[in-house]
Amino acid sequence: MTYPTFTLSLPAWLTEAAMPSEHSLATIEARMTFVIELARRNSEAGTGGPFAAAVFDLTTHRLLAPGVNRVTTACCSSAHAEIVALSIAQQRIGHYDLGGPGRPPYELVTSTEPCAMCLGAVPWSGVRALVCGARGDDAAAIGMDEGAKPADWVAQLEQRGIRVTRDICRTAAASVLTQYQRSGGEIYNARQAN
Amino acid sequence: MTYPTFTLSLPAWLTEAAMPSEHSLATIEARMTFVIELARRNSEAGTGGPFAAAVFDLTTHRLLAPGVNRVTTACCSSAHAEIVALSIAQQRIGHYDLGGPGRPPYELVTSTEPCAMCLGAVPWSGVRALVCGARGDDAAAIGMDEGAKPADWVAQLEQRGIRVTRDICRTAAASVLTQYQRSGGEIYNARQAN
Repeated sequence: MTYPTFTLSLPAWLTEAAMPSEHSLATIEARMTFVIELARRNSEAGTGGPFAAAVFDLTTHRLLAPGVNRVTTACCSSAHAEIVALSIAQQRIGHYDLGGPGRPPYELVTSTEPCAMCLGAVPWSGVRALVCGARGDDAAAIGMDEGAKPADWVAQLEQRGIRVTRDICRTAAASVLTQYQRSGGEIYNARQAN
Repeated sequence: MTYPTFTLSLPAWLTEAAMPSEHSLATIEARMTFVIELARRNSEAGTGGPFAAAVFDLTTHRLLAPGVNRVTTACCSSAHAEIVALSIAQQRIGHYDLGGPGRPPYELVTSTEPCAMCLGAVPWSGVRALVCGARGDDAAAIGMDEGAKPADWVAQLEQRGIRVTRDICRTAAASVLTQYQRSGGEIYNARQAN
């Protein structure tokens, strides 16, 4: 028999949107604001959960790849925004390591701190920096399970040469989560802890 | 601009292989032996790292989806065997939750214990059981970084109702790793701890 392939794609509103790839988003707040807007649009369009992420070139501050959560819409529990953005970024450069020789340093900006799975994915991706908006606690407050993250996850990433910056536009980022909850968005945890 | 999609597909030798989906692999050792053989073939064919996984229906012991590591060949750092198998399994049932209402219990069999990323992915997938062959230490012994896994990861999965069984055919599973190393297979860690 033939097994299906799995195609991870961005929603039409995002692939058709004007992207800031031709101009630079020079400040960390500008990059986060762009990502939070993707999370808001993904939630409002019903194309996935209220999460977005993007990979930026840290030397030019230009967008390499955006990503939004596609769990419910792509029928894929690992299609979190960070995994989508990193996978598309790696397709764009044609290599699995965004931090390989001759590459500029890349930054992953995420509207909410990564869950345990995405946290584990960050070192494998080759990014040199992680920038977070809302806290894991903000996601947990609307019932989104973040999984078993090591208490010292920030220090562990930094030990791998990945700079971590938290709480960038946290209030705006968290408001996308509460708005998703208020609008009755699906909370899609599979196996909760007892 | 248009961003590329990302397609996760199985190598041709695997999609063309005779699959045991029409008959049952009744014992845990038979299911693991099948998965170890996929890991060996993936390594020997040069279609990815020396890792494989598969999702089985625990009531019939029939295969739902196989997966092999595709990191280097698909240019995707998160294309670990477990993620590939779970994603294809979810495509087959048309839902992100393998543990949803009306589903049989599903089991993830993996030739080597999951890395930190795949460990985080397991609860999100909806599987009810995880079966491991080689230990994380066996992967580390050939230079494969397993990431920051909680020391009590087995207990944490069990608290979520996911039964964990380790060391099934461990020696055979570990031999695929050492053979990969001996044959000069690529060790593809991106951001190592200092």
